[in-house]
Formats: sequence, C-alpha cells, structure tokens
Amino acid sequence: MQAHSPNIVPTPADWRIDGAGRARLRDDLPPAMTGSHIDTQPTGGKFDGDYGGSAGLEVLSTLAEANVQTIAPFEVAVWTNQEGSRFAPVMMSSGVFAGAFTLEHTLAQCDRDGVSVRDALAEIGYADEHREPHAVGAYFEAHIEQGPLLEAHDKVIGVVQAALGQRWYDVTVHGMDAHARPTPMALRRDALLVAADPLQAVHRIALVHAPHGRGTVGRLGVHPTSRNVIAGRVKFSVDLRTADDLPLTEMDRALHAACAQAASKWSNTAAKGVSSSANNPIAIDIKQVVYFPPQPFAAQWVAEVRQSAKRLGVSSMDVINGAGDDAVYLARVAPAAMIFAPCKDGISHNEIEDAHTDHPESGCNVPPQVMPNAASNAGSIRA
Amino acid sequence: MQAHSPNIVPTPADWRIDGAGRARLRDDLPPAMTGSHIDTQPTGGKFDGDYGGSAGLEVLSTLAEANVQTIAPFEVAVWTNQEGSRFAPVMMSSGVFAGAFTLEHTLAQCDRDGVSVRDALAEIGYADEHREPHAVGAYFEAHIEQGPLLEAHDKVIGVVQAALGQRWYDVTVHGMDAHARPTPMALRRDALLVAADPLQAVHRIALVHAPHGRGTVGRLGVHPTSRNVIAGRVKFSVDLRTADDLPLTEMDRALHAACAQAASKWSNTAAKGVSSSANNPIAIDIKQVVYFPPQPFAAQWVAEVRQSAKRLGVSSMDVINGAGDDAVYLARVAPAAMIFAPCKDGISHNEIEDAHTDHPESGCNVPPQVMPNAASNAGSIRA
Repeated sequence: MQAHSPNIVPTPADWRIDGAGRARLRDDLPPAMTGSHIDTQPTGGKFDGDYGGSAGLEVLSTLAEANVQTIAPFEVAVWTNQEGSRFAPVMMSSGVFAGAFTLEHTLAQCDRDGVSVRDALAEIGYADEHREPHAVGAYFEAHIEQGPLLEAHDKVIGVVQAALGQRWYDVTVHGMDAHARPTPMALRRDALLVAADPLQAVHRIALVHAPHGRGTVGRLGVHPTSRNVIAGRVKFSVDLRTADDLPLTEMDRALHAACAQAASKWSNTAAKGVSSSANNPIAIDIKQVVYFPPQPFAAQWVAEVRQSAKRLGVSSMDVINGAGDDAVYLARVAPAAMIFAPCKDGISHNEIEDAHTDHPESGCNVPPQVMPNAASNAGSIRA
Repeated sequence: MQAHSPNIVPTPADWRIDGAGRARLRDDLPPAMTGSHIDTQPTGGKFDGDYGGSAGLEVLSTLAEANVQTIAPFEVAVWTNQEGSRFAPVMMSSGVFAGAFTLEHTLAQCDRDGVSVRDALAEIGYADEHREPHAVGAYFEAHIEQGPLLEAHDKVIGVVQAALGQRWYDVTVHGMDAHARPTPMALRRDALLVAADPLQAVHRIALVHAPHGRGTVGRLGVHPTSRNVIAGRVKFSVDLRTADDLPLTEMDRALHAACAQAASKWSNTAAKGVSSSANNPIAIDIKQVVYFPPQPFAAQWVAEVRQSAKRLGVSSMDVINGAGDDAVYLARVAPAAMIFAPCKDGISHNEIEDAHTDHPESGCNVPPQVMPNAASNAGSIRA
C-alpha cells in the first residue's frame, strides 16, 4: 500500500448517518466509497450484506490504527432495503443515491401492512438526516459470493467482471375454480396444473443459457386455495438473469413462448370435453416488473482488484455477479468494482449461510486488504 | 304419491334446531330424513349445499299445503361444516350424527384464528340445544350435480349409485432455499421445481383411472416465498378419488411412486454439480390425512329414485358421486340415496355456480317431487 499525505484520520465521532440509512465519515471531498446493504431475506444469513459494511469499517479501522491518512475521504455506505423483502423496489437507498428513483417516491412506498418507508425509518430514528447524493470518486463493494465457484476452485478472491442483467415478472394463470370431486379431468381448467409447465420452462430456459443463465420461481400463490377446489388462478414470480443483453432478450421471448404454449395446450385439452365451459380458454398474463440491463464494472478498477490480489499473494479468479447488488446502481454514477469472498458450500439466502473466516488469508479477511490497495493504485484515493 | 293416514302436519312452530346445526321437525318416531349442508367454499355458489335443505323444506311445505300426513316424521337436516373450509374435519355435523367422531372432539376443533367450533356455534346462538343422534328410517339427499354430465346428456335427474372413495394427503418437498442469482442451475435443490413433477403426476394418475378417477392439488404453499430466493420447502395438498377401493389403492401407490421418482431425479441432478451441498438429497414426505372408502348407496332406494323419476315422467341417468357429501356418513347408519339436479355448465365451488330453475320439470324442481315418491314406495314413510 502506498503512503499518502494526511487528510483524514477517521474516528467514530466523525460518523454520519443520513435518512437513506447510509453511515459515512465525512463528505467535504469526493470520496472513495465502500459498503453494502444492511437488510436481509426472511430466512437470510448473517453475511449477505453486513459483510460488505463490516469490511468497510475494517478498512477504516485499519487505516486509523496504522495512522494512514488519505486525501480523499474513504466513506462507508450502509444501504438499506437492497433485498426488497419488505419494501419495493429492491436496492432502494442505493437507487435513490444513484438517481434511479426519487427520495419522495421511495419514502412513500408501503409494505404489506401499509407502513411507509418514511414511517419505518422514523420509527427506528433514521428519517431526519437525509443528505443529497454527492459525487463519488470510486465505489468498491465487498460481498460474499453467494455461490459455490470460489470454494470449488479453491480461490480466495473473486474479481467481479460484471453484473448479470435481470428481468422480473409477475405471471398470472387464469383457469376456472371448480369442485375437485365431480369435475371430470378432461374438462378442468386447473390453473396450478397449467402453471407447472412454465415452472419447468423457466428452469429449462436458464439451462439453455448456461453458464450465466438463471431462472427462478420463488413465489407462487393459489386462489382460492382449498383442498377440494381446483385452482382458478395462480400467480407466480419469475426471475430471469444472464450476463449479456441479447441472451436476456432471448430468455424473455422464451418465457412468453412457454406461457403461450401452456395456455394453448391446456385450453385445447379442456375444449375436447363435453361442457360449454371449456370454450373459455386458459389465459396467462405476463407482466414485467423489473428490468436491469447487464452492468459491466469499471475495467481499470476490475484490473486493479485483480492486481492487488496478486500483489498480496492471494489467489483470485474472474467471476460474474448477478444483478441486484447496490454496486449496480453505483456503477451508473461512479467507476465501480466488486470483490467476492468465498461462501461456505455456496449457500446464501439461508440461515445456515457461512463464510470462511478462520484463515487470515482466506475468504472474508482479504477484501479489506485488497480494497485500499486497489483504490490507491487506481488513483481514487489521491496522494 | 300414495295417501297415508294422518300423523303430522308440519308447521314452522314444530321446527327444532340442535347444537350440531340441524333443523328438524320432530323426533318422536324414527323419521325419513332429507337435507344437506348449509356451509360453502370460500368462493362457492348459492346451490352447493343449500339446495338440498331448501328442497327438503319444499317437500315439507308441499306435504303441509296438500294436507298430506305421514306416520313417520319427515325430517329436514341442515348440516354444518360439510366443506371443511373453516374447520376440520369435513362433513362435521353429519359425522357426529353418524358416530364417525364424538361431539366433544368436534366442538374442540379450532379454525386458523384459534376459534373453536364450540365458540363459533355459541356466537351464532346454535350451541345450546344438542340432541343425541337418533335412528333414521331412510336418508335422501338432493344436491346439485356439481358436474356437467346431466346437462351434457340432457337429463333431469341423476340417480346416484355410489360415492367415490377418497384419499387426502399433505405432501412436503424439502429442498434448499438459496439465492436465486448466484446459485448455478445445476446445483439447485428447488422445492417448487421438484413439486411440478408430482403436480403433473396427480393429473396423469387420475386420467389412468378414467372415468371416475379424480386427482387435484388445490393448495400449495412456498417457503420462504421471495422472488429471488429458491424455494426451500413446498407443501401441497393432494385429493385422489375413484369409485372402487382397489383402484384407489393403486392411485395411492402411484402417488408415492411419482414422489419418490421426482425426489430421486432431482437429487441426482443436483449431485452432478460441484458443491458438497448437493450431497443432501431432496426429500418428499407424504402424509395421508383423510381416507373415505367408496360408499355404495342402498340398492333398493337407488332403484326407487330411478322408478319415481320414471313414474313422474322425467328423464334420469345413473351417476357416481364423489365422496364428501353428508349422505356418505348417513349411509353408515341408515339406508341412503342421493338425487342430483343438473348444474349449469357443470360449474360448482365458484360464485357463478348456477342451476336450471326455470322449467318446472327440469333441474332442481324435480328432486322435491321425486323424494316423497321414492320414500313412500320404499316404505320408509309407512301407511
């Protein structure tokens, strides 16, 4: 790590917390920023999100203990509601910071119980001190990989090239709720049975676009949901991702085709029955609710992360991240890069999520060392 | 209709309502009983259940207006919680009446909000006046068909031969919840994707046992239910029915085989991945929660219903009913028969459920005429 002329020696007294839930040191100079999100999933683990903020605090602490001073401030951002478990949209506070949506719009969003972001922040005492977004010299985000590749390849650092593009959908299958007992099988318009086709298609579509293709149905609701009533309506989520925009467009087309095929197949099956009710075809509505184009990270900074790992003597490999981390929004307003730490058994969004913390040069100990190296060499922290 | 010596001329003042929700006239002689249930499904229509009680009241009213008197009382039973939408088990009050379960056990059952049957009956003023079950000379139940066959064959009366046997199950697929973005497709243990296989198998199993085979998944819940979390656990209901016990046993075996095959297939698929997490196989638990053997109705009474329709000059056809009507329990303690009226477009358990009420000799006008004919000829109402 290069020596820099004195600028800040951070202490906890310098910390600031603003209305979008960011903790930072000071903001009188365009800072290098690091951080990640503080929220998690309903059954999430302790590393997804918090690790990146903790890594940033570790950097600050190490700089302070070693009395290393930088000209540009080194700022830690702790973003809220990145996962979107409680409020939509996801990546909420980084999105406000990067201008993807306005603060007013965001504060007005409500959870399922009708509680607004504004009220939820006020309740925990974080609503008062909003600051306007400011220029960022560079953004680094340390994050556990949430996947199995680093562990499988016995690498300590993942050098993230880009974030996957993603499309989210709400799909609704409209069938006909009817009594499970007398309604002959051939006459049924069973929305759940019909939905099984696109469920499987989402998986197949992702496999076609290996290795970066992802397809997931994480939510599915049945109406009216009674044991002996054929499902009249099924609504489910679809999450499609891949590394380039063209294949993502192909996946989108394939989803529409699979739903059209399922609707046609089961409408025709029902139409072979004797009842006039079968004349009402099965309909499948597809509504796209989120679209993030694939986001490459800043080439020079990605290279610096790779070189820093090399200089530190730790192994690394290039990886692709899915979309959905705050770095994706930050990459719209600043040169950005991500540093992955290995994740035990590749498991995340699960309470048993774990990281490799035992060895000083493995897993999550390294990104805090890589970060100032990369930042100083890339020039964001100017001597 | 034969003339009978005077016994009762029913008036509303003679009505009694007891603690299990039955409305009846008097009980000093073993009566012929008719009736059906008063409850419905969350999105049920206005005929399923109430039609049978109304038909019974129509019989009583007609007997009274015509000053026809019978020796044995003619009793109308209005059963509660036949559908099981709020409380388990289904066919609750007819089950108590037939001794399938005790009154104490039944009154202690609670809905999802923890409200007991006892408290729910007390709240609507029906808890005080329980009467012990009594001997029944015969039981007739008029019901809309809840299916399309009578309408399709242009018949006015369905002569019900038997009720389908049924098995209900709770099936749980245990996968692994994980992040939808980084987790490679090949390593996933996606409980919802796995569940799509048995969902489709249930349909196929029913088709194999045509025409009486039925297979339905009406409820399905996903855990943890977030757009970007792979489903770790999926729980769904299965409802299998057919007319004879041997095929029902075969359907049961086929369900178990389909679940075992899905678990094996997807466990093996995941095991081809690079992560040690794939060593945990996918498990599918199947718990049978309800079993009703197929229930034939009383041969002599079924024949009398058919003959009565013929004497009245209305068309009829023999049909099979699914299990699940109160007549199934009553058939355990009395000779029982069911009379079906046509159902518009075969649709039931749906708010648009409708019946053919316009023509005096079609649809639901006829069973009230058939019933006393059949009852008197079969000797239950003795001259």
